[in-house]
Amino acid sequence: MLPVLTPSQMSEWVAAKMRAVGIDVTLKPLGKQTGTDLELPPLVLGRYGNDPQKPTVLVYCHYDVQPASLEDGWKHEPFVMTVEDNGRLCGRGTSDDKGPLIGWINMIEAFQEVGVDVPANLVFCFEGMEENGSFGLREALEEEADKYFADVDVVCIADVVWVSDEQLSIPQGLRGIIFYLVTITGAKQDAHSGGFGGQISEPMIDMVNIMASLVDSNGKILIPGIYDNVQPVTEKEYESYKELNISEDSLYGGTGGRSLHDNQADALIARWKKPSLSLHRIENALPGAGAVTSIPAKLVGKFSIRTVPFMKAEEIDVIVRKHIQDRFASLGSKNDIEIEAYPSDWFYEDAGHWNYEAAIRATRNVWGVDPAMTCEGGSIPIALDFKKILKKNVLLLPVGRPTDGQHSTNEKLDKSN
Amino acid sequence: MLPVLTPSQMSEWVAAKMRAVGIDVTLKPLGKQTGTDLELPPLVLGRYGNDPQKPTVLVYCHYDVQPASLEDGWKHEPFVMTVEDNGRLCGRGTSDDKGPLIGWINMIEAFQEVGVDVPANLVFCFEGMEENGSFGLREALEEEADKYFADVDVVCIADVVWVSDEQLSIPQGLRGIIFYLVTITGAKQDAHSGGFGGQISEPMIDMVNIMASLVDSNGKILIPGIYDNVQPVTEKEYESYKELNISEDSLYGGTGGRSLHDNQADALIARWKKPSLSLHRIENALPGAGAVTSIPAKLVGKFSIRTVPFMKAEEIDVIVRKHIQDRFASLGSKNDIEIEAYPSDWFYEDAGHWNYEAAIRATRNVWGVDPAMTCEGGSIPIALDFKKILKKNVLLLPVGRPTDGQHSTNEKLDKSN
Repeated sequence: MLPVLTPSQMSEWVAAKMRAVGIDVTLKPLGKQTGTDLELPPLVLGRYGNDPQKPTVLVYCHYDVQPASLEDGWKHEPFVMTVEDNGRLCGRGTSDDKGPLIGWINMIEAFQEVGVDVPANLVFCFEGMEENGSFGLREALEEEADKYFADVDVVCIADVVWVSDEQLSIPQGLRGIIFYLVTITGAKQDAHSGGFGGQISEPMIDMVNIMASLVDSNGKILIPGIYDNVQPVTEKEYESYKELNISEDSLYGGTGGRSLHDNQADALIARWKKPSLSLHRIENALPGAGAVTSIPAKLVGKFSIRTVPFMKAEEIDVIVRKHIQDRFASLGSKNDIEIEAYPSDWFYEDAGHWNYEAAIRATRNVWGVDPAMTCEGGSIPIALDFKKILKKNVLLLPVGRPTDGQHSTNEKLDKSN
Repeated sequence: MLPVLTPSQMSEWVAAKMRAVGIDVTLKPLGKQTGTDLELPPLVLGRYGNDPQKPTVLVYCHYDVQPASLEDGWKHEPFVMTVEDNGRLCGRGTSDDKGPLIGWINMIEAFQEVGVDVPANLVFCFEGMEENGSFGLREALEEEADKYFADVDVVCIADVVWVSDEQLSIPQGLRGIIFYLVTITGAKQDAHSGGFGGQISEPMIDMVNIMASLVDSNGKILIPGIYDNVQPVTEKEYESYKELNISEDSLYGGTGGRSLHDNQADALIARWKKPSLSLHRIENALPGAGAVTSIPAKLVGKFSIRTVPFMKAEEIDVIVRKHIQDRFASLGSKNDIEIEAYPSDWFYEDAGHWNYEAAIRATRNVWGVDPAMTCEGGSIPIALDFKKILKKNVLLLPVGRPTDGQHSTNEKLDKSN
């Protein structure tokens, strides 16, 4: 049996590594997980350098990882780091996100070994609950914004990967999401379709009508006004997307998804620069599965809209609700409808900021090429939290590759990364 | 502890009761339940009378019951028959269907006590697997159609109830059902809507479009030609439906369903005499629930059409498939579609047949009123099996009331029934 580190022991291990290179460490307790008696692992905060002449960079990584076990099909014991002959580091967390975390400490060691001064003050914020939803992080950022993080100039989040294995990149945008729940209620309980089919009002009929009115089979959103504030794609961006080195398999993430677009640039624009509306589920809202031929009495339809700059969530919500209510009214249904929305904003940074310029220059120095400025289709809530709470430029700095096996078996980090 | 009778002991108990009144009993083994090592309980066959001058009536009942336990909220031990002060018989099976079964034996006893000859030859077919789907019954009917049942003139199934507690009735029609599975396939696996929303083709969009094209919120089926062969409702039927004594609660079965019709006759016509199309489910066809914001890769939509005389299932299937395929083609989708249909016919008998006339006359003699000729919205597969295999007139003779608690707690049979 391997020794198992508790989250709190893991935070101590990280703190010791940090102290060994001279980082001034503070463990910030986050209290108990809401609704439970479980103590959250602390934030490991650290400071290295305090020169008022230098910029101060807040570095975020996380020291928790996904579960793993040899029986899942790992070549090596996942919780022992194995270095393969080609220098590849194998093990859980090598890419997500223990590897990048240790990379920062190694970097300080390297500066120290060659006797060069680190050209920035570093403030560290290492989290232990990222893979579980970052419980407590937002509240901690709010508490420390004017205290521990008061002098932070910019933020660097080292928890992303390149856009493809072949293409160095820095993402400057992430789509937002507005998640919708539409509840339609008819009877008090599910009814037998033999006894009541044709006699009573069926929520499913309204539901599919409303769902079908939102988006067409080519991915075009049918809600009037939804595209009004979408930031246009520049010709330069379009041309740069054509040039990106992304295999077909990387582009579709191995899902075997059938493309709505016949070239890479259009596909990337659809993913990064345009809103999309996906229909997720229609679920029976009453307990018990019921007979397969029953008429469901109450249904919840789930869909979401991925938003992009410069759509305004509040305005989108108004037009979405109006569209659904108008459609529902047009059906002449006897059922009731209710709409709930859960918005989370898009993220977009100016790549002309010195924080980004430094990252671009560093990439060029190490790799000899400029990184592509890209986006991501999904959201990273913590990036938005840092930006909204600290009100500083936030850089997402990739360390690994998309095929590193993050959240999967045989996680690795290539020596080159 | 009460002694628990196995299904096979129960069949012996029934056989003994039958033999006691002079019925010639044969137990017909049904072999093992398909795919299991479980012996099916036998059919209990019986003959009483063999006069070539008399009609021969096949009587069907079942001796198995639904599960029950005192803890479910029964007033009396469910597997001990309790007679309340008002003569009401309480216990599991009193109404469904041990009570009606024993009623036939009591009837023979009563004829014997008063020294009157039973005016028909009786052939009994008592089943022990009705509540589990009548495994083996159809095959047994096919085997015995030209043997044990060769001289049967008509069939009487005593396993239905009145249309309402207040209204004596004899159902002459049952709707059929064509159950549809529509499978739409896009990617090989569910995709993240952040990463792929707008980029790949989504099966759910096609699915809701197809579902929405089938029926409107007022219950009108939108498939061209679907109503072409529907038997018109006669003015006499319409007038008789107005007069039926059915409470609002009975009419909607306590579901709290919202009526599509503003009077009883229209509601009953929608349930009994018109086809209906109900949308049941849209289910993810791949294992694992997936994230709530995922794009499902493969979905199964389930709907059914309740059919009425004189719709032809094969013709309906042709127009339904054409409608769905045309709609799917119009979407310009990149996904694949597949359609499966599982039909079961409607049932309709001529109430002018002497089998029905006898039942109507018997009702009038006992109750002093004519039973209403009604229908049922659901199907009773065994009724259709008897009709198709024996090719004789089949009568569904109600014994109990709809509120007898069949399949529920506190099952009872009123003394008057």
